[in-house]
Amino acid sequence: MGNPAKAKRGIPSKVEDFNAWYPFIVEAADLVDKRYPIKGMDVWRPYGWKAMRQIDSLTHKEMDRTGHEEVNFPLLIPEDLLEKENALVARLKRAREEGVDPDELRVEEDEAGFKKEVYWVKHAGENELDVPMFLRPTSETAMYTMFPLWIRSHKDLPLKVYQMVNTFRYETKQTRSFIRVREIHFFEAHTAHATEEDATEQIQQDLEIVDKIMNILCLPIIKAKRPIWDTFPGAHYTIGIDAIMPNGRTLQVASCHHYQDQWAKAFDITYENLDAKQQHVHQTTYGMSERLLGAVVGMHGDDSGLIMPPAIAPWQVVICPMIRKNSDVDTVAISHDVADTLRNAGLRVHVDSRDLHPGQKYYDWEIKGVPLRLDIGPRDVAEGNAFATKRTGGKEPLSIESIVSEANRCLDDVADVLRARSIQHMDDVIQPLPAFVEIDGVWSMQGEIEDGHIYEFAFAGTDAHSEIIERATGLTFLGDATDEFEVPQPCHMTGIETTRRVLLAKTY
Amino acid sequence: MGNPAKAKRGIPSKVEDFNAWYPFIVEAADLVDKRYPIKGMDVWRPYGWKAMRQIDSLTHKEMDRTGHEEVNFPLLIPEDLLEKENALVARLKRAREEGVDPDELRVEEDEAGFKKEVYWVKHAGENELDVPMFLRPTSETAMYTMFPLWIRSHKDLPLKVYQMVNTFRYETKQTRSFIRVREIHFFEAHTAHATEEDATEQIQQDLEIVDKIMNILCLPIIKAKRPIWDTFPGAHYTIGIDAIMPNGRTLQVASCHHYQDQWAKAFDITYENLDAKQQHVHQTTYGMSERLLGAVVGMHGDDSGLIMPPAIAPWQVVICPMIRKNSDVDTVAISHDVADTLRNAGLRVHVDSRDLHPGQKYYDWEIKGVPLRLDIGPRDVAEGNAFATKRTGGKEPLSIESIVSEANRCLDDVADVLRARSIQHMDDVIQPLPAFVEIDGVWSMQGEIEDGHIYEFAFAGTDAHSEIIERATGLTFLGDATDEFEVPQPCHMTGIETTRRVLLAKTY
Repeated sequence: MGNPAKAKRGIPSKVEDFNAWYPFIVEAADLVDKRYPIKGMDVWRPYGWKAMRQIDSLTHKEMDRTGHEEVNFPLLIPEDLLEKENALVARLKRAREEGVDPDELRVEEDEAGFKKEVYWVKHAGENELDVPMFLRPTSETAMYTMFPLWIRSHKDLPLKVYQMVNTFRYETKQTRSFIRVREIHFFEAHTAHATEEDATEQIQQDLEIVDKIMNILCLPIIKAKRPIWDTFPGAHYTIGIDAIMPNGRTLQVASCHHYQDQWAKAFDITYENLDAKQQHVHQTTYGMSERLLGAVVGMHGDDSGLIMPPAIAPWQVVICPMIRKNSDVDTVAISHDVADTLRNAGLRVHVDSRDLHPGQKYYDWEIKGVPLRLDIGPRDVAEGNAFATKRTGGKEPLSIESIVSEANRCLDDVADVLRARSIQHMDDVIQPLPAFVEIDGVWSMQGEIEDGHIYEFAFAGTDAHSEIIERATGLTFLGDATDEFEVPQPCHMTGIETTRRVLLAKTY
Repeated sequence: MGNPAKAKRGIPSKVEDFNAWYPFIVEAADLVDKRYPIKGMDVWRPYGWKAMRQIDSLTHKEMDRTGHEEVNFPLLIPEDLLEKENALVARLKRAREEGVDPDELRVEEDEAGFKKEVYWVKHAGENELDVPMFLRPTSETAMYTMFPLWIRSHKDLPLKVYQMVNTFRYETKQTRSFIRVREIHFFEAHTAHATEEDATEQIQQDLEIVDKIMNILCLPIIKAKRPIWDTFPGAHYTIGIDAIMPNGRTLQVASCHHYQDQWAKAFDITYENLDAKQQHVHQTTYGMSERLLGAVVGMHGDDSGLIMPPAIAPWQVVICPMIRKNSDVDTVAISHDVADTLRNAGLRVHVDSRDLHPGQKYYDWEIKGVPLRLDIGPRDVAEGNAFATKRTGGKEPLSIESIVSEANRCLDDVADVLRARSIQHMDDVIQPLPAFVEIDGVWSMQGEIEDGHIYEFAFAGTDAHSEIIERATGLTFLGDATDEFEVPQPCHMTGIETTRRVLLAKTY
């Protein structure tokens, strides 16, 4: 903010130009290197990968806690496995269009748009392959080919597995680190259940896990049941989880799909129930990706660089010993002692004893978003203190004697500030949608759509109403928020009383 | 061993038919599922993946300890990046053949056999790509494209990075789980140093890490400097690390390459030295793969299933509460208490309270190779004991009061037995090579080569001698063992005194 040292380093202003700030900061903070010669495939540098692995370990922990087991499926999927999936997707699509029960339809044509978005392996060595293969964009097809071999009876249910793998999407839109990339660091959980109700409960559990992780990442989110036209192919319904970026655009960071028994029917996944009858399983998936890190970078950073939520910061505390000539206090040794004390308490700590001007060190750790810096100079030592600077603002001496509890308190402060800022941002961004008036069959919007805002409204209208709203606003339906209105409100278009709270946003 | 229950389950005899036992056991123990519809691409099931991740975590720990940082590079490599690599390999090959300094040669032709072994991506969506890409078989080309951007001055050295990723090889030979697969779970460390000596020291450090990990896995190994014709393309020298399988064949589980500055010259990787001059870096790589798990499975298992080395066992201890009618002792609750005590001491413990016949449970945990089983029945509880069965043999009551130290002692016992067995196996397998006699320019071998053996001999001969030996024995030169003869011996072919100890084996 007007600091000439920073201006000299060329960090763009986040508030004034988020689209310049974001790509600058992901490289300046050493998260990724974008100079790899394939567009949309970045190199993860050590600092960025450490941050991502911390996010992954939150996920591993939640998966353990909820009885999911980790598997690892092949990357390559033979094209012929897609036939079942294509038939399923085409049938559901036609059923929706025609308003009939999908089980009554049989379609043969391949209508999946899917093939346009994948990388193909048609050659190996000097041979052309008999069956082309593609790089997984996600693993339904691969996994559901194996599930019938693993599920025999009700005793095998629920089956709850997950994997963390690289997935691929041939993006034709502009790429952006973490947000829109062509090789995606991806998490996907897949479950199979005896009944639709069990699958619905699984979705509830997924959403609780989402809440927990987002709270740790200090990110407020919108959970919305996507409209039918934005439901994942083959799904009964999709719940999208959107983070709100500083520019007011939403970024889908996770999603949960309830498949009912549609995929099970396509892939013949059945179990023998207690009455010795074969039943199709009901399935769900829950996915998240490196977009979580994109949201963390985008939401929390400022004009000095990143701000890492303490729970996932690669270094939660950096200690800078102050080396003064004419002092016989060994601040380096004391810094290492303090670091060991903090490490024994489970914190991730780095001692920066490089022979550099303190200003340079401060710059380096600010841009990397280390939540807590401790400076230890001879005078601090004499007073029994380490001098703390919180990345979200605020400086204070901490007693070395009680450094573990003091440092943890400071880290909690940083997380609280990040959470408060994010919630404030969400409140600022979400506004009521301007009124719509119908005169002689023509709808008009009574107000302007402002850039950087998300709009909410009560809705009990038809798909035709939705289309009118999307066209008038130029925004996208996120769907029905799981946070409904507490008391019924009149629908924006029809006046019918409803608690359904629909959100509209510009999306990434 | 003659147990009808086992015979009924169809576990082949390991001693009699290792080639049938191995593929049977990797599936029966739930390590992988080979029914995925691409040959050589298995699905990692939860138990197998857990074991592999334990091995990975040994590696992560060693990398941390030795100052390597984890990165993650894109899977896809554009074909045009290969030009530099091809020119390098071709130049080195010609220089070797012609016995000249490689720097004096310039060759243009593309001679790398490499292209025959990769999967190609030439299509994305509906487009044919301008530049074809291939799935990494290893990451030299990808990484060394970026290293010049990361290395500027001597302060940036040494650069030590590693990654754990999926790599791909279009295998045309018969595939075998973990041993020869087409998607490989791979570890690769890449380092760059100011001098050749620094790079040589890195190789020494790598070999120490190898020793440490192999000791933890209870696997005796051979480390051998590969003969020139088996050196990795572009390397100054290669040290292969071979495990010895039960059938006496060797399995290369790791390798270290010293590149000198050959790759640096091909990829223009230079640094500014203290005299402000540009110098090429000296590089090394160190690779390991899922073959480590293949060696663990192959070496330690028996006719009842796997035997997991305690350090990497997904479950180190399984507790089976014995449920007796007419007893009011809650053995399940006590089992969970004991499990919690062991978990708090850092052990991985599972309580099997399934309502099954104990024999079925024993079978399940034996086949999975759990090192220590504790049975807890009412009578054991009355005596204050848990009844231990070690997977390597031996049963004894353990005092619940001191269960942590007792269980750890048992686990150490299991590891010691595995190590002793492996060392015994190595001693049994390695034999002196029969004498070779030359009469009128014709060499003949004075004895027979026996199946299942590795042969050692002192060697100071020429490449022509090597060829004679390989042809006569039908075996492969592993190269010069890093464990040399303690006192010089006469060379097998020339009689020249040497400590060079060369090994010959049938390899995987």
